[in-house]
Amino acid sequence: MQRHENKPWSPSRFESRLRAVGDLGYHDKHPFHVWMNRGQLDRRQIQGWVANRFYYQTQIPIKDATILSNCPEPEVRRVWIQRILDHDGFRGEVGGIEKWLRLGEAVGLKRAELIEQRRLIPAVRFAVDAYVNFCRARPWLEAVASSLTELFAPALMAKRLGAFERHYRWVNQDGLRYFRARLTQAPRDTDYSLQLVMERCRAREDQERCVDALKFKCDLLWAMLDAIYLEYGVRKKI
Amino acid sequence: MQRHENKPWSPSRFESRLRAVGDLGYHDKHPFHVWMNRGQLDRRQIQGWVANRFYYQTQIPIKDATILSNCPEPEVRRVWIQRILDHDGFRGEVGGIEKWLRLGEAVGLKRAELIEQRRLIPAVRFAVDAYVNFCRARPWLEAVASSLTELFAPALMAKRLGAFERHYRWVNQDGLRYFRARLTQAPRDTDYSLQLVMERCRAREDQERCVDALKFKCDLLWAMLDAIYLEYGVRKKI
Repeated sequence: MQRHENKPWSPSRFESRLRAVGDLGYHDKHPFHVWMNRGQLDRRQIQGWVANRFYYQTQIPIKDATILSNCPEPEVRRVWIQRILDHDGFRGEVGGIEKWLRLGEAVGLKRAELIEQRRLIPAVRFAVDAYVNFCRARPWLEAVASSLTELFAPALMAKRLGAFERHYRWVNQDGLRYFRARLTQAPRDTDYSLQLVMERCRAREDQERCVDALKFKCDLLWAMLDAIYLEYGVRKKI
Repeated sequence: MQRHENKPWSPSRFESRLRAVGDLGYHDKHPFHVWMNRGQLDRRQIQGWVANRFYYQTQIPIKDATILSNCPEPEVRRVWIQRILDHDGFRGEVGGIEKWLRLGEAVGLKRAELIEQRRLIPAVRFAVDAYVNFCRARPWLEAVASSLTELFAPALMAKRLGAFERHYRWVNQDGLRYFRARLTQAPRDTDYSLQLVMERCRAREDQERCVDALKFKCDLLWAMLDAIYLEYGVRKKI
C-alpha cells in the first residue's frame, strides 16, 4: 500500500497537483484582492498595498540571486539571471523595482517613503524574509518550484489592470507599467520553470516537495495580504 | 595611543595597504607560477593546473551570486551582475567557463574529465569552497574587497600569455582566449570594486576588514597552488 502511494506522479498528474495549489490558495482569492479588483478599495488602502508590496519587490532579485548561488548548472543560471536583469534593470532598460516606484508615485506616495520602507508592516517583512530564507536554504529546485505562483499571476494581473483602468482612474496609466510588463514576463518565466521542475523531479518525494514549496509560497503571499488587510481596514463600500 | 592607532586611513594609505597585500602574498610569486612563466612546466603539470583551476572557474559565478544575494542596493547589483554574465556567457557570448574548457582541450584534456572534476585535488576544492563560503557568510563589502586580487591579475595574465606563446607552443592560440579576455575584464571590474570599497569603508575597522578579506583571498589562491605543486611535483628542468 505504502509502495503504491509513493509511486511517482505522471507528468500530467504532477502538473495538475501544482495547479491545484493555486486553485486552492493563490492570493487572487484573498478578500483584499477581490475588493481591489471590484474597485472597492479607497486611496489609502491602495497606497498601503503598494507601499507594502514594494518590500516584496525589493527582495525579488535577492531571492533570485540565492537561486543562482545555489545552482551548479551554468545553463540554468544563464536563463534564470534574466529575472534579475528584468527586475533590477539592465543596460538602460527600466527594471521592475523602478516600475513599482513609479506605481507608488502614481498612487500618491513619495519615492523616499517607499525606499525607506516607512509604511512597511512587520508581518509583511517577516513573510517576505521567510521567502528569501527559504530560497537561500533549500535545494534550488524547490526554490524554483516556489516561483511557480507565476503560473497563476497573469490572470490576476490582467484582472487588476482592468480594475485600475476602470475603477481607479486617479492612478495614471504610466504607473501601471509594472503590471503590463509582467503580463508577458511571467508566462515566459513559468514556461521555463515548470518544464525544469517537471523534468528534474521524477521521484514522488521530490514532486511532493515541489508541491509543498508552492503551497509555502502561496501561504506567504496570503499572509502579506492578511497583514495589509488588518492594517488598512476592511472595505468601505459593499 | 589606542585612539591614534584606530584613526581611519586616508584613501591613499588605504589603497596602498590593499596593494601591499598583493605585493606580499599574491600567487604570482608562488614557485609553481614562477616556473610556469619561465616555461619550466611539462605537459602533465600544465594539465594538472588547468584541471584544478577549472574548479575555481566553476565557482566564480556562484560566488558572485552570493554577493548579489547579500547586496541590498540595485545600483551595485546592476554593475556586479556583469561578472556573472561574463563568466556564464550571455546572449550568445562565450563565457569564461566555456573559454576555460577550451583551454582544457587545448592542453589535451577532455571536456568530460574537466566537467566531472576527475582530477580535482581535495585541498583545491576546500580552498575554493572556503572562498564561496566566505562570500556567502560575510558582509557583501568584505566579499567585494576579497575580489580585489584582480588588481594584481592583469600583470600575471600578461606574463602568462607571453609564457604560453613562447614556451608552450603545443597549446593552440584559441585555447588562450580566457587569459586575453581577462586582460580587459579584470581592470574594468577592479576599477569599480576598488572605488566602492574606498568610498564605503571609511572607518578604520572596516578598512582593516577589507585588508583581511584580501589577505584571505591571497591565502586561498596560494593554497590552491601548494596543493597542485604537491600533486604534480616540482619542476623537471632548471
